[in-house]
Amino acid sequence: MTQFKVNKPNILLLAGGVGGAKLAEGLAAMEGISLSIIGNIADDEIFHGLWVSPDIDTLTYSLSGLVNRDQGWGLADEGSKALEMLKILGNDTWMFLGDKDFGLHIHRSNRLRQGYSRSEIASEIAQSLGVKVPLILPTDDVVQTRLKTNEGWILFQDYFVRQRCAPDVLDIRFEGAEQAKPTSQALTAIEQADLIIIAPSNPILSIEPILSIPGLKDALQSSKASILAVSPLIAGKPFKGPADKVMASLGLEASAIGVANHYRDLIDQIVIDDQDCEATAEIEDMGIACGLDDISMRDQADKVRLARSILANHVSFNGFVSSEAAQ
Amino acid sequence: MTQFKVNKPNILLLAGGVGGAKLAEGLAAMEGISLSIIGNIADDEIFHGLWVSPDIDTLTYSLSGLVNRDQGWGLADEGSKALEMLKILGNDTWMFLGDKDFGLHIHRSNRLRQGYSRSEIASEIAQSLGVKVPLILPTDDVVQTRLKTNEGWILFQDYFVRQRCAPDVLDIRFEGAEQAKPTSQALTAIEQADLIIIAPSNPILSIEPILSIPGLKDALQSSKASILAVSPLIAGKPFKGPADKVMASLGLEASAIGVANHYRDLIDQIVIDDQDCEATAEIEDMGIACGLDDISMRDQADKVRLARSILANHVSFNGFVSSEAAQ
Repeated sequence: MTQFKVNKPNILLLAGGVGGAKLAEGLAAMEGISLSIIGNIADDEIFHGLWVSPDIDTLTYSLSGLVNRDQGWGLADEGSKALEMLKILGNDTWMFLGDKDFGLHIHRSNRLRQGYSRSEIASEIAQSLGVKVPLILPTDDVVQTRLKTNEGWILFQDYFVRQRCAPDVLDIRFEGAEQAKPTSQALTAIEQADLIIIAPSNPILSIEPILSIPGLKDALQSSKASILAVSPLIAGKPFKGPADKVMASLGLEASAIGVANHYRDLIDQIVIDDQDCEATAEIEDMGIACGLDDISMRDQADKVRLARSILANHVSFNGFVSSEAAQ
Repeated sequence: MTQFKVNKPNILLLAGGVGGAKLAEGLAAMEGISLSIIGNIADDEIFHGLWVSPDIDTLTYSLSGLVNRDQGWGLADEGSKALEMLKILGNDTWMFLGDKDFGLHIHRSNRLRQGYSRSEIASEIAQSLGVKVPLILPTDDVVQTRLKTNEGWILFQDYFVRQRCAPDVLDIRFEGAEQAKPTSQALTAIEQADLIIIAPSNPILSIEPILSIPGLKDALQSSKASILAVSPLIAGKPFKGPADKVMASLGLEASAIGVANHYRDLIDQIVIDDQDCEATAEIEDMGIACGLDDISMRDQADKVRLARSILANHVSFNGFVSSEAAQ
């Protein structure tokens, strides 16, 4: 097992949805660390009057083991009866919401009306479903991603689900971010972290909304922790989602180099895929330590292997020592 | 087929839940009449932040043919995944709400938040589910039955579902009734009715809340229509629900005579079960015409038979003529 100089080092993961949840699961399986996760809330949206929080739910469902493993989001053994009724009653139902999932959205919306904060509710739901890792929201305020396409500004789920990421993204804004206050839990987690890992999530659509909340990027930059990103791209392609398309249409290079460059003000290290080894020199020229690994996470064993390898092989700052190789 | 002097007479049914829905189905199958229904909204209640309207839904589900025939309420082919999730998340789940049913409650609650009136929503839902009969709410305001038990005042579903009608009912009030305004549709339906039928529903818990809305009882009493009640009791027992218990604990006689007496200011006629034939004289002494029939409705054929028999054999006021016996 990996030995750390720091006893139970605090590791903080910044994560979006499916990709972030995979690494979250891998890290949650590690012993000897104290893990916290800050999730993305900017793809939250109201459907049928209910508050839906897709990325947070993906983290919750993944870490509770209730997730639908085939699709990486939603719940296993789901039904679609509520959605079928909503369709019969004349509602748009392009956003799939399962029956169990609806139970959760009903609960969340009801708790919101009762006056609980979004982060209290997310934490309570995660605990009820058996998640052991603190799941932290970056803010209790509403921040929503809006994407400018040829048809004007649209909401994230419209782009991502209804239009299947087909439109070119001309611009992005995180509505409400400027006024949003970070949660004290997020600030504390950053302050106490020994290592901060940016998950292989969409840099623009999943991580940037977290960084857009005033105070959070500053806290990250002034943190004593080393910050390590895991590339969400292998040979320029994401496992899932439109990271490459969105990066390209915003003028960023859709590659490991582009990811490193995007995070260059923030990160100390990046782990990229073995396939992208030729990018190492250019990334290290940016002053970023570049590690190579097999970063694909096809199954549970891959997630654990990558998490273990990050801690064992790639973390090389004070406080961490890689005394043993990954098992 | 029954012949009427009036072309397509307007028949208005006042109905509660399961018992009322059965006669509603029977009447809806009749040709040559124009049927409307005023349903009971006083057992409406908020569950998990959603507006649930059990009696209206029972009417809607029954008249659309989607009802669970075994239980007489709820939907056939239902699931319970949403409720299971709500239970895991720590919510009381003694009120069964199915997954399809949740779809409807989500829709109703969302439409309410969008500013639609309860009666617009009920009408829209009924139409979407294929109900051909106008389903009218007595009021767009909130009227809620509260029952006084030894433990104090409780809501209807607490008494009916959670406590399974076990407590003695010491008193009843219809909260909000005094301030409630009748809907124009209800007033119009009463005004235009040639015959008003009070369904074999609980007189205290299902029909009284309708009558408690200022203006509605007056409109009924001053209506040109004949008013005919169908007893909800046979040999002192209801088919379902606590009508006998509630009547008895409020000091009313739990019998066909008690029902006739309760409605004596309102009705011209009552149809009671053949088994209660000995009550005829006492009821007729109240100035109420008393018809005998088999009023049990065990299956679809029974509902149609009773509806046909009421129109063919028991309606004997001007405008109606029973030219042919029930088929």
